Parts: sequence; C-alpha cells; structure tokens
Amino acid sequence: MKKIKSEKINTSSIGVVETQYYTFAEPGREHQFKSGETLGPVTLAYETYGKLNRDKTNAILVLHALSGDAHAAGVHAGQNDSGWWDDMIGPGKAFDTNRYFVVCSNVVGGCKGSTGPSSINPATGKPYALDFPFITVADMVDCQRRLIDYFGIDKLLCVAGGSMGGMQVLQWVASYPERVKSAIPIATTLKHSPQQIAFNEVIRQSIMADPAWREGNYYAYGQPEKGLSVARMIGHITFMSDQSMEEKFSRRLKNDKFSFGFDADFEVEGYLRYRGANFVKRFDANSYLYITKAMDYFDLSGDKLIPHGKVIPTRIMVISFKTDWLYPSHQSQEIVRLLKRRLVDTTYCELTSTYGHDAFLIEVEEQTTLIKYFLDKTYNGYLVAGHDGI
Amino acid sequence: MKKIKSEKINTSSIGVVETQYYTFAEPGREHQFKSGETLGPVTLAYETYGKLNRDKTNAILVLHALSGDAHAAGVHAGQNDSGWWDDMIGPGKAFDTNRYFVVCSNVVGGCKGSTGPSSINPATGKPYALDFPFITVADMVDCQRRLIDYFGIDKLLCVAGGSMGGMQVLQWVASYPERVKSAIPIATTLKHSPQQIAFNEVIRQSIMADPAWREGNYYAYGQPEKGLSVARMIGHITFMSDQSMEEKFSRRLKNDKFSFGFDADFEVEGYLRYRGANFVKRFDANSYLYITKAMDYFDLSGDKLIPHGKVIPTRIMVISFKTDWLYPSHQSQEIVRLLKRRLVDTTYCELTSTYGHDAFLIEVEEQTTLIKYFLDKTYNGYLVAGHDGI
Repeated sequence: MKKIKSEKINTSSIGVVETQYYTFAEPGREHQFKSGETLGPVTLAYETYGKLNRDKTNAILVLHALSGDAHAAGVHAGQNDSGWWDDMIGPGKAFDTNRYFVVCSNVVGGCKGSTGPSSINPATGKPYALDFPFITVADMVDCQRRLIDYFGIDKLLCVAGGSMGGMQVLQWVASYPERVKSAIPIATTLKHSPQQIAFNEVIRQSIMADPAWREGNYYAYGQPEKGLSVARMIGHITFMSDQSMEEKFSRRLKNDKFSFGFDADFEVEGYLRYRGANFVKRFDANSYLYITKAMDYFDLSGDKLIPHGKVIPTRIMVISFKTDWLYPSHQSQEIVRLLKRRLVDTTYCELTSTYGHDAFLIEVEEQTTLIKYFLDKTYNGYLVAGHDGI
Repeated sequence: MKKIKSEKINTSSIGVVETQYYTFAEPGREHQFKSGETLGPVTLAYETYGKLNRDKTNAILVLHALSGDAHAAGVHAGQNDSGWWDDMIGPGKAFDTNRYFVVCSNVVGGCKGSTGPSSINPATGKPYALDFPFITVADMVDCQRRLIDYFGIDKLLCVAGGSMGGMQVLQWVASYPERVKSAIPIATTLKHSPQQIAFNEVIRQSIMADPAWREGNYYAYGQPEKGLSVARMIGHITFMSDQSMEEKFSRRLKNDKFSFGFDADFEVEGYLRYRGANFVKRFDANSYLYITKAMDYFDLSGDKLIPHGKVIPTRIMVISFKTDWLYPSHQSQEIVRLLKRRLVDTTYCELTSTYGHDAFLIEVEEQTTLIKYFLDKTYNGYLVAGHDGI
C-alpha cells in the first residue's frame, strides 16, 4: 500500500518515539458515554511529537482512521514500522515538529492500548467483550478532550485526520468549537450514506457469522480469524480505486497459469488474502464491530455540526480525493456547503490522486503544500491576534 | 429490487410456462470442458417463449446473470414469481414473442435444473461437490450450442443478456460468430478488472470461511448459510448505485431509535440481511464458487474476441448504464472500440439510469425502445437479404 510520493524538501523522521498512556475516570468517577453507560477507569494510548510551547498555543491533535492507532510518526525502539502518517508528521513535514507539538490519540473502544472490548473489566477480571459500553464518535472526542485537558491545552491550533479521523475532526468542531483554532477534515463525511453503512454491516456480519466469534467471548480461544479476515478484505477493496487496482495488479497471475480451482490465481486475490490474514494478528474483532457501528451512527448533518445562528471561530480546510469512492468528494462538498452557510472560514481542495480512499495516507506532496500553508497562516494569525484573530 | 419502469404500450405476459430439460453427453460420449475434464450426462434446464418459425430464423437466445436461471419470462403454474426478464420478454415486449422464438438456457455448473456441483454424480451416487469439472464461460456457451443444435437452429437471430449474460453473449460471438446474426451484450465487460475479481474473491472466501462449507461436502448437512449469506450481501451492494441506495433507504431506521448494539438499526442493514438469508434458500454455495471463478477467468480482450483480420457478420449493440460501478461504462466502451477496430457493425448506448448494475433488469422502457428497433432491423434485413445481409 505504502507507495509513498514524498516531496523533495528537507525533511527527516522524528526518530524513536514511545507510546504513552493516560488514565482517567478512576473508580467512583466513571466516564459516562452518550448511550448512558459508564466506564472506568479509561486509558487512552497516545504519542506526542515536537515540543509544547510555553503558551501552549502550538498543539495539533491528529486523529486516526478505523484501524489506526496512536503511532502516527517515527519508529518504536527496535522496530522498523514507521507511524501511519510518518510522511506527514516530522521535522520540516506538513505537521512540522520543529514548530508544532503534535499529539495522536488512539480512540476509546480500540485495541491499541486504549480501553476497549478486549481490555480487562476490573469488575470481572475478564475482557469486557460485548459488555463494553456502546461508543460513538462523540465519545471518542470526549475522551480525547480529557487528554487535552490533562496537557493543560486550552485551545488546539489544529485538529486533523482522514476518514474516521475526519469524523472526529468534525466532532471536535461540533462538541468543542471554542477549543479548536482550525480543523482539517480529510476524505470524510458528515454522515455515512446507506452504501457506507452497507459495507460496514457486511463487515460486521462477516465477523459475527464466524462461529469462532462466540457471541464476542472468544478471548480465551483466539480471534474469529476467518470472519475477521474476510471483513478486512472487503475493507481493502473499498480503500482502493478501480484505477489504482488496475495499476497495481491488473490481471497478473500469481503463477504462470490458471489453477482451474479455488486457489488465489490472480495477484489481487493473493494481496487481499495476505491483508486479511495479517489484520487478524493486529486488530481485535470486537473493536472492529464497535468502531464500525460508531461510524454508522455518526451524523452531524443539518444543525448538528453548528447550530443555526451560532458563530464559531474555527478555520476549516476540507480535502477530498477524486477517485475516492468510499468517501466520495460530494460528501466533502456537503461539509463545505454547510460550513459556508454557517459563515465559517472554509477552504476546500479536491485532489486528483488515483489512489482512492487510501490517498489521504499516500498523497503526501500536495497535502503537505496545502496543510503547511494553512497551519502557517493559522499559527501566525494566532500569534498576532492573540486569541480569536484571523 | 423490482421497482419496474414499464412502458405504457400494449404488452402482456407470456402466461404460464414450464421449465424443460435437455440432456446430452450420455455415458461414453462425455462432454469435454476447456480444463480438459469431462462430464456426462449433462442436462441443461431451459424455457422457450413464442414459436420457432419454419425456417428457424426467428430464434433469440437470452442469457442470464450469475444467479439467474432458465425462468426468464411468464409464471410457473400455481406460482406468482414471474421470470427475471419478464418485463422484456412477451407479447409486444422488447423480445416480442408474437414475432420471435425466445430460448433461455440455464448455465452448466448452476443449480437451477442444469448439471452442476449439487447434481448427483452417477459414478458415486453422491453430489459432485468439488469433483465437478472446472467450468469457463466458453464451456457454458459450448453447452448452449448443443441445445441450439438440438433445436436444429443454424443461426440465432440474436443472443442477448446482461452482466454474466453479456459475457456469454460475447463468448458466442467469439466461439460461433457464424451462428449469431446479432448480439446485445448489456452491462458487461471483455474481462474482469482486478476490482471485479476482488469482489468475487471476497465472496468466495466468505463461503469457504464458513466451517459449514466442509470443503464443499455440505450436501448431507445443509448449506453454509452464514458464509453464503454474507457473500450475497456483498453482491447486493455492488448491484446498486450510491444514489439508488440513497433513494431507497437513505439513513432511515428500522425502529424509532438506535439500538446501541449490533442489531440491524438501518433499513439498509435489514434489507441486506433479508437478501442474504433468502439467497441461501435458492442458490447452491458451490455453484456460486464455480460461476464466480468462471467470470474471473473470462477474458476476450485483444485478439480473443475476434482474431485480427477476421471478418464476422454479426451486428452488435452494446448497452451500459451510467451509474453501474460494478460493470462501468468504460468497460462497455472498450468492447465497442475493439469491435469497431474489427469493422464490426456496432452500436453503443449508455443509458442514464440511477439503478446501478441492476438497471439491466429494471430500466425496461429505454432498453425496449433500443432492442425492439435493433431486432426489427436485424430480422427484416435477414428476411430481405436471405443470409448475411444488412
């Protein structure tokens, strides 16, 4: 996947980083979710890159997609895997760590160090499984807000993210507009269309159809590997465009000739099988259920993003990609129309990548140009005006 | 699915029809498939509508899609379900049974009365399961040719069909051009793109991931219901367009409010679950594996449809639909470009339906206009010129 187009400017990796953990909602002070259910304690895994300045005015919160994690940039000691947005975060990069303090927080409900269905329920000593509270994107953002409070940051210079990360960006604007100086929702939507819900539903059904899922109580036995693998294969098709699949695989065969059977004949089949098999090693099936459902429930259309008549100080840049058919440009354009009607300072860019939805991870060069300038203008305006300038 | 746009002209149903069966390749005279494997006896289920004229010049072969069957028009005695192209085949309709003799043949490898993996292997007294020979679209067409031979039809007035039916149409042109006066491939392709292969591969993996599939030997126990159901849900997403899903479901809930759980909250989820559950009652899982693989292997690009330098007498009308993203218009345009380069008498129409791939079953009015005129011109030219006129 990571065929990176990186720009030829003087950038470098942030280097070795470490995931950290923030725990809140200790017993007796449980966190309440939108469903009314409570949870405590709650841990969020997060990473930070760069330094928070004295005034705490240079903080950027970066938000990940469905299966992402807190490891957005740099490498972990002794490992080679760089973070999921490493090309965008680091010295001289789009989110320039020489200038800004970048925080990436894993979502509650996930399985990458934050409290989620696979975490141990202190009340039972066993994983929560389906006893874990139902979560929404607003709940993810509420938990992140507590992390930002913990840092003592009053106002984020920017919140940015793609796909479900973009939903969290919009939710930050809806929930805490006075705490967000600027926002960059990328390849995202105000609400899932029935087609997007449909793909998520098939993903869930694939997991739940696997007897190894055991109504969510599989932790003593291992993941529902086959169902989760098929689920992820579906996802991967939607992340790529028709064109990028053609460029990457065409109809090339794995071997010299057809198997005349049900083996993986074509490279694209082998790729999907590999991706599916790999995913079960790194992502919890129940987290996949919870998070896809949170995405389907998400809806900031109409008055829900910004109530009618309310004025918000946030500057927003919306980015979409022409070949992204999972989060098509018309959904980003709907965000822009809504923001313009609310008189929000809004910029929109549709980039012409061939990579489909994956473009937000791959198209580094154009995004870097746009984001660098946007952040620069926001930050300078901030410094000059003191508070709500620009 | 069947929100039919029917034209306001004087048409009627063909009435009560009966599926018939033609058996060939009796023991000792087995049919050989492209894989080299043999099979016998082979039965094809078929239906006919209208009357074959004395000269046998008015025969049209209609070919079905992946999960279709021989029952294309009319109703079966005591049942209400009309055939899958009933709006297109009948007195006064596009394929006018007052004029033409229409044959619809089920494909070999299927499970609707033709010999397929669920048929009893006479050698063992048990279903073939995965001992069934591997089939290709060319094998489907070779078997149909034997049915046409049996009718004593030298030259078909037309072969027509959508989706996999369109692949068979193209295969008829490739395998037996001298026996095809005209052809109407609809919403189809010369070859599956990697994205189309990817969807079929996920469908197969979903079936094969179900332990109830038992390596294909499930017949004594019942279908791999869960895997097959998920497989079909994936299919249904690809059959509809983003827009038609929005029109049909939008984000309407099944009940008044969210379940805050993993029930079907949205109507689209309920629809997909219903469609999936229904499919396992009517279609054999192994047939789904065999037929999807046949579609993926299909490739008539380059010189394979019509060898360079060869002149074929067939008139061809290619039809595609603007919102069909499973078999996008650019694939139909590729068929047209190839035919034009081979100097074939070719017409192309892109219709502006919102129904996505399903449009070939739903958009009756415009298809009727096009097909009626095309057949009329072909038939009249045939009568006037005697042999290869037009």
